[in-house]
Amino acid sequence: MALHDGAVRERILIQHATQVVGMDEAPQLALKNKKDSSMRVAINLVKEGKAQAAVSAGNTGALMATARFVLKTIPGIDRPAIAKLLPNVKGTSCVLDLGANVDCTPEQLLQFGIMGSELMACLQGKANPSVGLLNIGSEDIKGNDNIKKTAELLRQSELNFYGNVEGDDICKGTTDVVVCDGFTGNVALKTAEGLAHMFAVFLREEFGRNWWTRLCALAALPVLGLFKKRIDPRRYNGASLLGLRGIVVKSHGGADVTGFRYALAQACEEAGSDVIAHIADRVAKQLDNLKQSEAEAN
Amino acid sequence: MALHDGAVRERILIQHATQVVGMDEAPQLALKNKKDSSMRVAINLVKEGKAQAAVSAGNTGALMATARFVLKTIPGIDRPAIAKLLPNVKGTSCVLDLGANVDCTPEQLLQFGIMGSELMACLQGKANPSVGLLNIGSEDIKGNDNIKKTAELLRQSELNFYGNVEGDDICKGTTDVVVCDGFTGNVALKTAEGLAHMFAVFLREEFGRNWWTRLCALAALPVLGLFKKRIDPRRYNGASLLGLRGIVVKSHGGADVTGFRYALAQACEEAGSDVIAHIADRVAKQLDNLKQSEAEAN
Repeated sequence: MALHDGAVRERILIQHATQVVGMDEAPQLALKNKKDSSMRVAINLVKEGKAQAAVSAGNTGALMATARFVLKTIPGIDRPAIAKLLPNVKGTSCVLDLGANVDCTPEQLLQFGIMGSELMACLQGKANPSVGLLNIGSEDIKGNDNIKKTAELLRQSELNFYGNVEGDDICKGTTDVVVCDGFTGNVALKTAEGLAHMFAVFLREEFGRNWWTRLCALAALPVLGLFKKRIDPRRYNGASLLGLRGIVVKSHGGADVTGFRYALAQACEEAGSDVIAHIADRVAKQLDNLKQSEAEAN
Repeated sequence: MALHDGAVRERILIQHATQVVGMDEAPQLALKNKKDSSMRVAINLVKEGKAQAAVSAGNTGALMATARFVLKTIPGIDRPAIAKLLPNVKGTSCVLDLGANVDCTPEQLLQFGIMGSELMACLQGKANPSVGLLNIGSEDIKGNDNIKKTAELLRQSELNFYGNVEGDDICKGTTDVVVCDGFTGNVALKTAEGLAHMFAVFLREEFGRNWWTRLCALAALPVLGLFKKRIDPRRYNGASLLGLRGIVVKSHGGADVTGFRYALAQACEEAGSDVIAHIADRVAKQLDNLKQSEAEAN
């Protein structure tokens, strides 16, 4: 606390916690045995209304399990999803789920669409965000039965459903929201991270080859710096655990101060724009529509 | 042919075909109605032993359906897979399936592992290539039942199975072969393509901002050129339709002369290294092992 001046210190309240959840700890064990971990204490504060959001850089599985257990999901949401705002050539899009749910039903994927849509509306001020379903081709016949049923549900919903999108559409910014199961989303995100790292390695190698290429690098350094800043993953740190009755944001485990600041800002913006109430409203409306169309069908 | 001198012309035989398969044509319709398309004629030549390989930049689905129908699969291979050699920070790895099979059984994924392993051995001279299973975490408990069963099969096989790998391991070059279903593989590949395109756009934008950044670009141009050449997708053009009793290589539909040359070279190398015989041998051995362990179990 020595780093903070009086004004900042007054705004900070330290809540003691005696336990730590290990990064490799099984989520269910952490839930059962770590009732006084910082993670649990923070989420309890959200539950009690003493905090508007919890931000953690800890064990994702344990964070998800604890958040689900303590906060519960919004009525009409089966399972929370991990959502992230990612850069694209046009601006920003929201991709979910990024790893919380390996297999998803069409209903769950529809719920992800609603949650992503509301997140984009609240955080990016997008009116009626477009929603794409991640698939391996744009045609309706592509994908397995689960994907086809999901497309059907999304088409019938009140969402601004664009249709199927492919992997490259994420960075093209074809839609504001990209919906996928957690397996596909996680692989896509990590593949992109791996490619970005490879490009950085290759650029460094090419510019570091000899004194002449190093001279070129020196000349290009200011511009390369701007490029690096633009794609800096720390700027996109902070994944939302969406679908809970409280705001929980997951920071990358290896985030530095700058990265963690972005995760905190994400939590702040979610709290300020009341994203949870918006999701709850939209899901309730969707459930009403479903009941109505079922009643009409009978 | 005016472009070619006499020596080259003597080595080229033009086989006439009266039909064309459209890029959006349904594979089954192309198979039924386009018996004299260039695609079908080329694959027929492979079947008849008049050509050692077929290379096409046409409709992927139609190419796969036609190749399967005419050439048939290698005994012990249920379905062919699309495999591609991709760059990583250490060298090259083979990823499959990239879109031929949306849902895959553990047995099929094991077959992909065998095929990818033999391709890497034949084309890259790798002895006992390492095989990774694409998952959303390295721990054994990650993924769905299908993935867990596949890991079990791969572990029991004679392949050099590394274990689970994640999306970023593709570009890290953690393993020589990365096995996945066609849905995940396709999304991963296209996401990577989209990210590469976005980086190119961002780099161009940053260097083109004003006269000063353009000057920086000019200074860095030779090195940026080397970088661009290194990641040039044309150098990785040519996906193998593995598992067939003949060599079929798919070029990107939008490939230029340089790109198409790489696809032709890929086909040549496969023919020269007798990759099909190697796959057939390995699969036969795997089937023998299975029968033996089943006999021992009974």
